[in-house]
Amino acid sequence: MEKNSGRDFMEKTKHKNMGVSDQQMHLPQPPLSWPAEPVNPKIELPHPGSLAIEPVDIRLLITQRSSLREYAEKPLALEELSHLLWCTQGVKVAYDQQMTLRTVPSAGARHALETILLVNRVEGLESGLYRYLALDHQLELISTLSNIAGRLAAACFGQRFIMRSAVTFVWIAVPYRMTWRYQERGYRYLHLDAGHVCQNLYLAAEAIDAGVCAVAAFDDDEINTLLCLDPEEAFVIYLAAVGKKMKG
Amino acid sequence: MEKNSGRDFMEKTKHKNMGVSDQQMHLPQPPLSWPAEPVNPKIELPHPGSLAIEPVDIRLLITQRSSLREYAEKPLALEELSHLLWCTQGVKVAYDQQMTLRTVPSAGARHALETILLVNRVEGLESGLYRYLALDHQLELISTLSNIAGRLAAACFGQRFIMRSAVTFVWIAVPYRMTWRYQERGYRYLHLDAGHVCQNLYLAAEAIDAGVCAVAAFDDDEINTLLCLDPEEAFVIYLAAVGKKMKG
Repeated sequence: MEKNSGRDFMEKTKHKNMGVSDQQMHLPQPPLSWPAEPVNPKIELPHPGSLAIEPVDIRLLITQRSSLREYAEKPLALEELSHLLWCTQGVKVAYDQQMTLRTVPSAGARHALETILLVNRVEGLESGLYRYLALDHQLELISTLSNIAGRLAAACFGQRFIMRSAVTFVWIAVPYRMTWRYQERGYRYLHLDAGHVCQNLYLAAEAIDAGVCAVAAFDDDEINTLLCLDPEEAFVIYLAAVGKKMKG
Repeated sequence: MEKNSGRDFMEKTKHKNMGVSDQQMHLPQPPLSWPAEPVNPKIELPHPGSLAIEPVDIRLLITQRSSLREYAEKPLALEELSHLLWCTQGVKVAYDQQMTLRTVPSAGARHALETILLVNRVEGLESGLYRYLALDHQLELISTLSNIAGRLAAACFGQRFIMRSAVTFVWIAVPYRMTWRYQERGYRYLHLDAGHVCQNLYLAAEAIDAGVCAVAAFDDDEINTLLCLDPEEAFVIYLAAVGKKMKG
């Protein structure tokens, strides 16, 4: 074990220790998002505006929020999932292949995250892994491997509420989208950005009588292997389980 | 420049590379927050509930939000500042010296952040640096050094909207509060947590006709020196400028 790997990271990612970025060297910008696999089924998501949300004082919503690890059996409606996806990564504007403006802030509008969903109980969706195609507000079915929920929970050291969740969001960092401009300091920003996204999920869920529990304790190797990620290209940075609140 | 400091950090902060935590070794837990300096003036903040907030659909609030770098001359009311502080770091429950539950989630309820404010235009407050005493919902005046706004902006590579902001939030990470339990992996969580906090600021500001611009580009040494922080103990992790929106 290295005693100072965190502090070393902060030291090494000071601006004065950055060199010339790939952007400054006019290397091509990486794509704004992963392409969908043509062979995979796509599911059109309802327009996020199709779900009526009761207006509420933001202070109340923020104050009420707490982490929830027990969920009702009731599934999420597809409209509710659409709402949660919109509020966490929804694309408001896409400027050609240059950048997107989304419902969350991101350093330099780099938006270097992808969203994978473990779907356990969502009306109209079979259980499995899906990817959110943010540019098209669609889902792409990527796996229906049996017991994927159990394996994901195991990769999170057996946090079983992931298996009981209606859906678990798995945020993937695609570091080159960030480091192309910001170099290694971008690894700070990837985490800050994942925090923005997760907080929106907490609040968007609270507004539809659902609860969230964020998960940052996971076995990096195991979870990246499970999701077939090459950690040089992409890695799991954060997760959050979601489900409807139990009555009472 | 080291080419892989971010990736190295991710590798070195895998769980398998952690050892035994100070908590596991029964070392004493660090304090929940910094103590106030007795000599410094304290300012009681209005109860956060004293400001009426118009109820709004959270999806609308999230969708409307955008980063704002130009602010109206109009100052923030003290009630508005109180609201923003509550929504970002407000303490809902304090369990003796063990932990706090706040208006934001934090890994293991460690809440390893402190909030310093650069106040430029807040009704009833003189310009200067203040610290938010979250446990007491008070402000502590810590500096009225002249041109502190200019020096803070300079430490952020001259991002002048910091000088034009009504108030700029400066979040300080106190790493041992996190690493006591999570060791060096806690540096990931510090950034995730700062992201949660900043997103709440964006939304809480949006609800009172104010706008925010987050700042993660700063000269670490310069800004930590300016705020008299010993980076082994505490360091600036994120900032956000806030001001009322201009009309029209």
